[in-house]
Amino acid sequence: MSSKQEIENILEQAQQAFAAIEKLGISKRVALMRTVADEIEALGAELITTAQDESHLPEGRLVGEKGRTIFQWRSYADALERGDSLSVSIDTANAERTPPKPDIRKTSVGLGPVTVFGASNFPFAFSTAGGDTASAIAAGCPVIVKAHPGHPKTSQIMADAITRAVEKSNYPSGTFSHVFCETYEEAQLLVSHPIVKAVGFTGSNKGGMALVEVANRRPDPIPVYAEMGSINPVFLMPGKLKASAAELAKQYVGSLTLGVGQFCTNPGLAIGVQGPELDQFIEAFQEEILKAVPAPMLNGGIAKSYLANREKLLGQSGVDTAAVASAEAAEGCGAATVAVALGVDFLINDALQEEVFGPFALIVKCKDADELLAVTEKVHGQLTATLLATNEDLAAHSELLAVIQNKCGRIIFNNFPTGVEVCKSMHHGGPFPSSSNVQFTSVGSDSIKRFVRPISFQNWPDAFLPVELQNSNPLGIWRTVNNELTKGEIS
Amino acid sequence: MSSKQEIENILEQAQQAFAAIEKLGISKRVALMRTVADEIEALGAELITTAQDESHLPEGRLVGEKGRTIFQWRSYADALERGDSLSVSIDTANAERTPPKPDIRKTSVGLGPVTVFGASNFPFAFSTAGGDTASAIAAGCPVIVKAHPGHPKTSQIMADAITRAVEKSNYPSGTFSHVFCETYEEAQLLVSHPIVKAVGFTGSNKGGMALVEVANRRPDPIPVYAEMGSINPVFLMPGKLKASAAELAKQYVGSLTLGVGQFCTNPGLAIGVQGPELDQFIEAFQEEILKAVPAPMLNGGIAKSYLANREKLLGQSGVDTAAVASAEAAEGCGAATVAVALGVDFLINDALQEEVFGPFALIVKCKDADELLAVTEKVHGQLTATLLATNEDLAAHSELLAVIQNKCGRIIFNNFPTGVEVCKSMHHGGPFPSSSNVQFTSVGSDSIKRFVRPISFQNWPDAFLPVELQNSNPLGIWRTVNNELTKGEIS
Repeated sequence: MSSKQEIENILEQAQQAFAAIEKLGISKRVALMRTVADEIEALGAELITTAQDESHLPEGRLVGEKGRTIFQWRSYADALERGDSLSVSIDTANAERTPPKPDIRKTSVGLGPVTVFGASNFPFAFSTAGGDTASAIAAGCPVIVKAHPGHPKTSQIMADAITRAVEKSNYPSGTFSHVFCETYEEAQLLVSHPIVKAVGFTGSNKGGMALVEVANRRPDPIPVYAEMGSINPVFLMPGKLKASAAELAKQYVGSLTLGVGQFCTNPGLAIGVQGPELDQFIEAFQEEILKAVPAPMLNGGIAKSYLANREKLLGQSGVDTAAVASAEAAEGCGAATVAVALGVDFLINDALQEEVFGPFALIVKCKDADELLAVTEKVHGQLTATLLATNEDLAAHSELLAVIQNKCGRIIFNNFPTGVEVCKSMHHGGPFPSSSNVQFTSVGSDSIKRFVRPISFQNWPDAFLPVELQNSNPLGIWRTVNNELTKGEIS
Repeated sequence: MSSKQEIENILEQAQQAFAAIEKLGISKRVALMRTVADEIEALGAELITTAQDESHLPEGRLVGEKGRTIFQWRSYADALERGDSLSVSIDTANAERTPPKPDIRKTSVGLGPVTVFGASNFPFAFSTAGGDTASAIAAGCPVIVKAHPGHPKTSQIMADAITRAVEKSNYPSGTFSHVFCETYEEAQLLVSHPIVKAVGFTGSNKGGMALVEVANRRPDPIPVYAEMGSINPVFLMPGKLKASAAELAKQYVGSLTLGVGQFCTNPGLAIGVQGPELDQFIEAFQEEILKAVPAPMLNGGIAKSYLANREKLLGQSGVDTAAVASAEAAEGCGAATVAVALGVDFLINDALQEEVFGPFALIVKCKDADELLAVTEKVHGQLTATLLATNEDLAAHSELLAVIQNKCGRIIFNNFPTGVEVCKSMHHGGPFPSSSNVQFTSVGSDSIKRFVRPISFQNWPDAFLPVELQNSNPLGIWRTVNNELTKGEIS
């Protein structure tokens, strides 16, 4: 456990490391990140068994998540090597102009020390060695991870791997720190301290907004990237429903029950217009739910919350329980559940949008296309929205599409939101309350951009410029020179 | 004057316009921006005489600023046409992979209605038709400008020009609104209202932070881009001083007194190591200050504040007035002033860093290189920092350079910070307290990025994608496809 004084010391070390990281330069940082990936790859069975024990997630899932975590470090290192996150641009001088035009060159540098609060539901990919840590390191920022209390041993194994990589790569020890907080005050200090320049968080709305509020009390604003809950609406469009209602329901329940529904992209809300096709969909959905086998949730607290939140939602006026998995759910397990409500009830009661973290879905039956539009306008900001639709459905619903697009960070066609691809084009974030900052992603290499700031050099001598800005383009990266992208040198 | 109800109505119109703007698409938005530029260009002598009357700025300066304003609209339109602010990236599908890799395509859309609070010191370029308005429109956001009370008639002429362009381009009237606020509550509503999704501000620290605090009280966080005060330190390095102390002083005072010192990039702080060269610099500086002719400031309030803030700073312990312009300053005019203090006094008193908005500079004499470093570490966040230095000076001061870089948004070599070039590579922003958001610029085409958010389309049918994401690349823009930049089509 870390006392307040220990945290102060750790932050001082991070501050010192920040200057050293900048000085060591981009190529060495790319190498550091690849070494972290290698160290994680080299972790043996202990990592998986420890995480299984602490998270109740199955081996196959954890092995996959380990691969994803390694891929994050490697692909973000690649993005840094390509110069993506530097966003270099150069405007050369023109002495003939009145007044003379100066030479201006812009690159990006790290914000400073970053605190990361990991999530319980991805003990590897969104925790200690997860995307927030990898992207902040790529940005040139030292990282202080607050260990998640749900998987402290797993967190320590990952922290040790990163620390080994930091040592092997001759980076200062303050580059990465791992902190166990005993009190809320200690966790707050990791946000309020003047040395901390940004915060990454994945978890509940309550947890994320508490950090935003701590940051708001600072004299100096800093970004808090809180990726919070989402119920990820799925729109059941008439043409598609007509063609394959039963098949869609089956796929839907597969996505809903994946990982016992413990994903921030879990599709917890389905919306359609009432009629025989929607009834057929609901019927097939119920059958699939009944067949689902309850599985252990991440921990007792989450299982308890699942029951309590489900009960609260099922108790709302107009909400009917349609089906609960028939196999008995042992203590700590989550039983898949589906409920149905009418659009008119959804419109007047925000409680129907409360996230039930786990394998729970609410199907909202709208009486017609107008009510579907009204319900959609009422939906809060989301990480994702999914359309199960034909092209004809899309063509017929342009107004609805515009409203949906305005509500989400990722819009999916005939696919399901779970399974967040790690790539440059991914946007994992969305309008509030799904995230606290709608402008940045927490998955994919563009997540590095959360932790950098631009800096311009004016009339600076070439030899003293950061390498990425020098005339000869020593890194061989794409640069915008006088508004044109080029890998060329500047003569 | 606008009542609360009128503001509510204006915001509702902006909200409706937002959807329409998105639908009208990028090419029409580029055309709208060029029409705004044409309308401003067509404004006759009335604009200049009105602005002269309201701001006391000379005709030549205002004619130049009008050109700069037009250039902002045109160059931001060009950037939008090139796709810069869309940051398009595409990762194509791979059905062979396990699990199958989806097709993900990311572009950028406007945040929603944006409120702009303009500055008094640039009645054209940073006010009603200024950079914040131009960049928000480029982003696809409707804009509500709160007219600056310092130049209401100028503001109205500019607003009318934009409104004509909006009408000629068949954009909805809610695309641009111009509001006069009678009370602080009305101005607050332009930040606190749920329809508003971002705020642009240029002005004082007090004004900017008041808006940040209003935004912090919202349930949903929104970005407030406040570009606030800065004293723009100039580092007088020994080699350069030795070579040309008197010439540097002359150039410095030219930058300091330009526009009666009423620039956010005014170089209000000079720092050097004591010795005969620094004494020579100070002596020459004094001579130049004595020769400076006091000129009318923007308005009586600013002139009064200049006197009060200067008096407060000159009254600090250890601060000696070195010279005040000898010509008598008429009421409302600002007389150039220079003061001197020792590093030891600067280190213990933050009041020596208070901005004195106007033609005022404080020269800090450090006793040695160590004190210079300590003083630099003490300097608050700045829009700019300038080094008057030889290459040998740079080579000998790498530690100092790293500290300076960490404090500013733009770092200048043997040039002066006034004259902010409008180009993609410009970063006009900096660590707090110079701006409230260190990650974005308020000048140059990258300022558009303040007002957009990313959105990803997964497995979306080509015909229904936004044009910039379609296979055939109809806009002919640069796109990152599978991590490679290309203007090519996707087959």
